[in-house]
Amino acid sequence: MNPSNTDAHRHHDPEARGFASDNYAGAHLEVLAALTLANGGHQVAYGEDDYTDNLQQIVRGHFGATAQAFPVFNGTGANVVALQAVTDRWGAVICAESAHINVNEGGAPERMGGLKLLTVPTPDGKLTPELIDRQAWGWEDEHRAMPQVVSITQNTELGTVYTPDEIRAICEHAHAHGMKVHLDGARIANAAASLNVPMRTFTTEAGVDILSLGGTKNGAVFGEAIVVINPDAVRKMKHLRKTSMQLASKMRFVSVQLEALFAGDLWLRNARHANEMAARLAEGMRGIDGVEVLYPVQSNGVFARLPHDVSERLQKSFRFYVWDESDSVVRWMCSFDTTEEDVDVFLAALKEETAW
Amino acid sequence: MNPSNTDAHRHHDPEARGFASDNYAGAHLEVLAALTLANGGHQVAYGEDDYTDNLQQIVRGHFGATAQAFPVFNGTGANVVALQAVTDRWGAVICAESAHINVNEGGAPERMGGLKLLTVPTPDGKLTPELIDRQAWGWEDEHRAMPQVVSITQNTELGTVYTPDEIRAICEHAHAHGMKVHLDGARIANAAASLNVPMRTFTTEAGVDILSLGGTKNGAVFGEAIVVINPDAVRKMKHLRKTSMQLASKMRFVSVQLEALFAGDLWLRNARHANEMAARLAEGMRGIDGVEVLYPVQSNGVFARLPHDVSERLQKSFRFYVWDESDSVVRWMCSFDTTEEDVDVFLAALKEETAW
Amino acid sequence: MNPSNTDAHRHHDPEARGFASDNYAGAHLEVLAALTLANGGHQVAYGEDDYTDNLQQIVRGHFGATAQAFPVFNGTGANVVALQAVTDRWGAVICAESAHINVNEGGAPERMGGLKLLTVPTPDGKLTPELIDRQAWGWEDEHRAMPQVVSITQNTELGTVYTPDEIRAICEHAHAHGMKVHLDGARIANAAASLNVPMRTFTTEAGVDILSLGGTKNGAVFGEAIVVINPDAVRKMKHLRKTSMQLASKMRFVSVQLEALFAGDLWLRNARHANEMAARLAEGMRGIDGVEVLYPVQSNGVFARLPHDVSERLQKSFRFYVWDESDSVVRWMCSFDTTEEDVDVFLAALKEETAW
Amino acid sequence: MNPSNTDAHRHHDPEARGFASDNYAGAHLEVLAALTLANGGHQVAYGEDDYTDNLQQIVRGHFGATAQAFPVFNGTGANVVALQAVTDRWGAVICAESAHINVNEGGAPERMGGLKLLTVPTPDGKLTPELIDRQAWGWEDEHRAMPQVVSITQNTELGTVYTPDEIRAICEHAHAHGMKVHLDGARIANAAASLNVPMRTFTTEAGVDILSLGGTKNGAVFGEAIVVINPDAVRKMKHLRKTSMQLASKMRFVSVQLEALFAGDLWLRNARHANEMAARLAEGMRGIDGVEVLYPVQSNGVFARLPHDVSERLQKSFRFYVWDESDSVVRWMCSFDTTEEDVDVFLAALKEETAW
Repeated sequence: MNPSNTDAHRHHDPEARGFASDNYAGAHLEVLAALTLANGGHQVAYGEDDYTDNLQQIVRGHFGATAQAFPVFNGTGANVVALQAVTDRWGAVICAESAHINVNEGGAPERMGGLKLLTVPTPDGKLTPELIDRQAWGWEDEHRAMPQVVSITQNTELGTVYTPDEIRAICEHAHAHGMKVHLDGARIANAAASLNVPMRTFTTEAGVDILSLGGTKNGAVFGEAIVVINPDAVRKMKHLRKTSMQLASKMRFVSVQLEALFAGDLWLRNARHANEMAARLAEGMRGIDGVEVLYPVQSNGVFARLPHDVSERLQKSFRFYVWDESDSVVRWMCSFDTTEEDVDVFLAALKEETAW
Repeated sequence: MNPSNTDAHRHHDPEARGFASDNYAGAHLEVLAALTLANGGHQVAYGEDDYTDNLQQIVRGHFGATAQAFPVFNGTGANVVALQAVTDRWGAVICAESAHINVNEGGAPERMGGLKLLTVPTPDGKLTPELIDRQAWGWEDEHRAMPQVVSITQNTELGTVYTPDEIRAICEHAHAHGMKVHLDGARIANAAASLNVPMRTFTTEAGVDILSLGGTKNGAVFGEAIVVINPDAVRKMKHLRKTSMQLASKMRFVSVQLEALFAGDLWLRNARHANEMAARLAEGMRGIDGVEVLYPVQSNGVFARLPHDVSERLQKSFRFYVWDESDSVVRWMCSFDTTEEDVDVFLAALKEETAW
Repeated sequence: MNPSNTDAHRHHDPEARGFASDNYAGAHLEVLAALTLANGGHQVAYGEDDYTDNLQQIVRGHFGATAQAFPVFNGTGANVVALQAVTDRWGAVICAESAHINVNEGGAPERMGGLKLLTVPTPDGKLTPELIDRQAWGWEDEHRAMPQVVSITQNTELGTVYTPDEIRAICEHAHAHGMKVHLDGARIANAAASLNVPMRTFTTEAGVDILSLGGTKNGAVFGEAIVVINPDAVRKMKHLRKTSMQLASKMRFVSVQLEALFAGDLWLRNARHANEMAARLAEGMRGIDGVEVLYPVQSNGVFARLPHDVSERLQKSFRFYVWDESDSVVRWMCSFDTTEEDVDVFLAALKEETAW
Repeated sequence: MNPSNTDAHRHHDPEARGFASDNYAGAHLEVLAALTLANGGHQVAYGEDDYTDNLQQIVRGHFGATAQAFPVFNGTGANVVALQAVTDRWGAVICAESAHINVNEGGAPERMGGLKLLTVPTPDGKLTPELIDRQAWGWEDEHRAMPQVVSITQNTELGTVYTPDEIRAICEHAHAHGMKVHLDGARIANAAASLNVPMRTFTTEAGVDILSLGGTKNGAVFGEAIVVINPDAVRKMKHLRKTSMQLASKMRFVSVQLEALFAGDLWLRNARHANEMAARLAEGMRGIDGVEVLYPVQSNGVFARLPHDVSERLQKSFRFYVWDESDSVVRWMCSFDTTEEDVDVFLAALKEETAW
């Protein structure tokens, strides 16, 4: 296949990389290869294809015999469909104030799912049974949207990672109150790599009922899957996915990407590498005056406080996000394609700007 | 790139094709090539990338200087976001009873968009000012959801094609009543090929305000775009797209596919070929007793009435959809990859089964 | 109590009555008396009061031992809450094209309930198993909103009345397909009066699962109740009612009105009288040339076709609604306070205008 | 009128009163008298009646020449319709964490309005420009529901009252950022009585765009009104009210109640009395050991911290709400019908139980 055999043109520099987000990265070559593999011929649309069928056993391999995968387009879609699946029309979701569903999904859970989020401030993005209890009450009180599910993010939006025991405690607590547990796994691979355990250890074995399995940030072109672990918790997922506008017609192309990632160890290789680069980045910052790394660096993101002017000068050469304007906190993300050189060049620039 | 360099496997026969749907087909090789081209390096996520930027001028080339493209994931997403964009919370949509938004989107317009559809039965899937008038009334009556937009499909779900004059008449009528016009262009390329005119002739120049530009059925892996032609008709599309869960993070991969299709003439080549195959199919049916072709075959679909038992026997070898069980109507769709041989083999089988 | 002991003034003529609608009428004096009775002292808000408690046994008396009443504000609220109660998020409602929920509720079922209505044209506002079958299919097809409930109106919006057998046939048919049956009983009293049977004969005993019990059109100031007959069909009605904005704080005042109507026979007296007035009206029209009564006059409404100019002249003195502009059909409604003289005066005017 | 002339019975003790809520009270006799006044004869339904028409000038008298009243059923309805009126589909509402819309409306703003609430913890239920700024940012960021309206409650859910200057500062701040201001006036009369100024001083003259005018807690049977002060801020309120299920058919009965309250000074008499009773209650608690009154007592509610066991014993004789279980905070509300004796008897009981 000759890449020039298309009317499209390259408009960007394929060697330019930064630390803004793991979804600024492109797709892993093995994922692109998988698209080609799945191409050609006709396959039943809307999920009855052989790739989506095959994906089921891959997902069962990771999450146990009851697991079922429902591929969707993106993370917001995965979360909003999954949360609807485990709530009634009068239900509410308990989550951390910093949860992606609360701060980064444009109000989709409320607007499209009709869901109230009952948020709890946390020190590090992680819920605990005690923190959950601040919102877990009033099930018989119709004046309050009914808490029916606890949603946690693994790893969290702040780069921290729940231990399997921490998740188990949350699940037991939630279940004891008749609530389900949803895990937003947009970066679940990074968490598994960080913990050095199979994904099932902190999902299925810990009691999680349903999760959003991330593909995009792990090296896919696009594509996530809702994984139902507890089949008793949900009904008619296919109908819910469709009415929620998350049903892909040529689903084989979502499924084969997830196959490329999760059939072997590509998901883990990608996540490990990204985590290592973040560790290298954090390590390199130790000696830099004026830069304070926040939160334990347990996955592929580094949060740091640094002087506003340093941040501004640095942004002229490197695109990244200011996480909290008022507190001078910035976020740097590593991805599967971040190189050691990328990190070192960035550290050198950071050193220079702080010494300025 | 070696396609076997992935943990994914081929699970299907890349030479097997049928007539069930144009989205049973895979992606065109030029589209896959474009994905590779856009890969590598980092690009700003969520639509600020160079490919989405470049797509704007391509879309302006097709739809005029005011046109703006908002890539989304799928057709239902494109339609539901576009329709929300031109309605208030109390608005309703006038459409044909056979419209995709009415019969094939799992209630997403109602459930996610909160939109009432005011439907009109049509003989051939096409609305007219007269048919529109059956629902276009009562704007001051709060007991009625307010008709604010007319949605037409080009080509229609029944394979028929509006002439530019027919669309112009609809637009003038709608505008005279203060309504906007949305065009569901999931198969707009096939309509343009059929009419042998540029797409703008029956959209921008006819008065259409907003449209769903189809990529998937034309040979993309996935991806459509909402094209806003009348910028006065909408506000804050980016916010509406996000809250509607249709914002792709790695949007470059949607945009470059649309570039591969619409920068040159791939869209037209694909559509012409599919239309020609449908014409060949319809032509070949002429001499077959017991098969009655319904509606003018103006694009890439053929609707026919044939004896129930013939249909059943045929479905053992060829997958296709029964369109209307009670009336023994079936639908056969051709796609960009349908071959003459595919058609001839199918005609031979049809001949054999009807003679049975 | 001295009615002048208030800063409010009378702004209308308490002797002026017309045939526009049964909700143009005020409240029955016995209902007003009941409000006074329930007044004074404190009662637990939001439905835990003694009147709402007492209402339960009244409703059980009418609808059987399993019946439970959930008072709400208005008919649209009753319908939209009841329909949500028996559908999932992906559910749809089969109803007549002429159903109030389809044509007179401002899109609330779609907008607030997220419900798709699958409508069927009917000759007389009445569904049948055969008519239902035109929409009752595709339960496994996620591309179609799932038909989960059949909603019928008794008496219908066209003044016709289902026999108990007709409703039984609908319920059996619906249940056989796993669907529930909702009865919009905004004018259920008129239907019972017309059939001369208890309400339970054509609801509980016929298989209806849930109904909207009308109070307003029967002589209340305001107020309806959702009556759940089949407790297995619904869950957490109180929560659904609250999140749907239909929970009255001083609920005792809704409940006591329903008590005034349904504890004795006021509901039936009011309905019988209104029906009789409609019969007198229809009877009086027999001899009038140019006036054609449409549909059997089985309750408190008369639909008639009459020349457009007659209709226009008549509307100068009497307010009533044109039902179908294009077909010169008008609607005249009688209410509990319509007098024989009202009817006769109107008939005289009609006679005069048609002879004009 | 003989109150016994009804099949309804009295089920409660009209002399029993408590401190649980101002909506445990019944209706003021002048309001009941107004219902009788408006009864009889026919009046156009759905708001075209003479009482709703007349209400407009009453509301203009209170809120200025641009004010327009839209009667609705209840407070949740008023709030959810008003907030939708000043937001787009992608909009969000900034409010105090303790706001009724956030904690007591069963998720209706999210579920029915599709609105995300951006909440801010406050010391006393009152927002300030500084507190608003914690959520007022990111208007161009589609990943965040767009802050379009600030909603304040006057008086607040904690019994505190904004000064006109405080509200003016909020309005100026909101308007400077392109946001509107909504005032939840479920107890607006109590606030006006407390401040001893006309309602317009802290609404129209302070810059409020739209408000929910409370009737129920002030002595109505039921009924509130949305008052649009800034007509440029909203469109098609009638349509929005209808599609939101808040349109009363016999609207004259809502409007005449509001007339009874607001045409003269009944609203103020009722509010002043309730406030005075709360002041008496708070005053009487001064000397009671172990009871700590929280927040300034500025309207008709008293919040206090008292030992858990005292609270429990007291609840055996008096129904009231525990406001914050974890902090032993309870709420006592006075209403228009609370008597001095009620207060004194309660204080005596409280004294006894604390001394126990």
